[in-house]
Amino acid sequence: MTTATTVPVVEEILSANDSLAAQNQARLNEACVLGMNIMASPGAGKTSVILRTIEALKDELQLGVVEGDTAAVTIDADKVITAGMPAVQINTGGQCHVDAVMLGKALPALPLEHIELLIVENVGNLICPASFTLGTHLNVVIASVPEGDDKPYKYPNIYRGIDALILNKIDLLPYIDFDRQYFRRGIEILNPSVTFFPLSCTTGEGVSDWTDWLLARVQAFRDD
Amino acid sequence: MTTATTVPVVEEILSANDSLAAQNQARLNEACVLGMNIMASPGAGKTSVILRTIEALKDELQLGVVEGDTAAVTIDADKVITAGMPAVQINTGGQCHVDAVMLGKALPALPLEHIELLIVENVGNLICPASFTLGTHLNVVIASVPEGDDKPYKYPNIYRGIDALILNKIDLLPYIDFDRQYFRRGIEILNPSVTFFPLSCTTGEGVSDWTDWLLARVQAFRDD
Repeated sequence: MTTATTVPVVEEILSANDSLAAQNQARLNEACVLGMNIMASPGAGKTSVILRTIEALKDELQLGVVEGDTAAVTIDADKVITAGMPAVQINTGGQCHVDAVMLGKALPALPLEHIELLIVENVGNLICPASFTLGTHLNVVIASVPEGDDKPYKYPNIYRGIDALILNKIDLLPYIDFDRQYFRRGIEILNPSVTFFPLSCTTGEGVSDWTDWLLARVQAFRDD
Repeated sequence: MTTATTVPVVEEILSANDSLAAQNQARLNEACVLGMNIMASPGAGKTSVILRTIEALKDELQLGVVEGDTAAVTIDADKVITAGMPAVQINTGGQCHVDAVMLGKALPALPLEHIELLIVENVGNLICPASFTLGTHLNVVIASVPEGDDKPYKYPNIYRGIDALILNKIDLLPYIDFDRQYFRRGIEILNPSVTFFPLSCTTGEGVSDWTDWLLARVQAFRDD
């Protein structure tokens, strides 16, 4: 009974979500803002990567951040604002993802005319965010070494169709049994063209490869 | 529009789920099986804790395991079977949690008359499993040090109403900025009576506190 009643509704929601995502993208295009959706498991380091990205690019680009949280806490948003960036928080009210409706409501709260790169930090979840497009131009997943090398095999949907994959916390590799080849193979089966960035937000290793790539993507978008 | 159509359906599902959970618990009671639902973020170490638990209790108790996975991979179930335990896998078909219907379908596939402790490994997710009771007698969350000390504040629902909280990967504390007091305070606000087990599946530290407690709970259930 559960299945029979939920499936059609979920399909309707996803289709409505897709058309609202297209509206979000049109809005971003009009304002010449590149949108990037960052997805990850809880604690993989989304906020740390965003803070490192702000640190590296704040003199090159105008940034803005949308923080998606399931609860009414502003821990992440506060960190971004402390780093000097305009940020708005989406409280999903317990929902396991940000959707296009929520992002559509957040956009008017941001000074889009002064933003070139808008980063959306999705809710920490490796499942639900994969089903809800937001209208962002880039979709990025952050994996982390302590989560284990088998995650691409166990949560495949989130890795399909993303543009970049960050493997965070590589400073912990000496202390954890993590087979990089096995992990990479799992990703490549799902998404052969993904760009891969192993890095550590703690030591800074590999961060500039990621931010150089991102800067080039924003510049290409602006020149387009 | 999305909200208007989803909320009533979700409520119906949750209510149907609760009554099926009660049926599951009646079934377990009849067979004198203590059921335990283990929830955690992806990569917090659910399977490692289960394997350590099997290792510690296999001479004391008859165990069985239900493995919930979002994809048709048997990585975790294979590990449990290799450890000599009866296991069945629930493939949730991309869903972000195990629900009472799924568990109800899995129970007949297990030799319940030869099982005293049935462990259900939920899907790796800190949000969705909190909404779906399964009918298990114990509900346990595994947190892990690399996920960060702020998780209770950001994903509060999962910590409410659980019986035990494991903090796994304490062997990584020297390499990670993790404030144990801040973490504990966050949990205690949500769930003052929770029993807390800091441990490491890698080194074995703290594991016997957890398995002693669990064994006592199974014995008390049997004697009841």
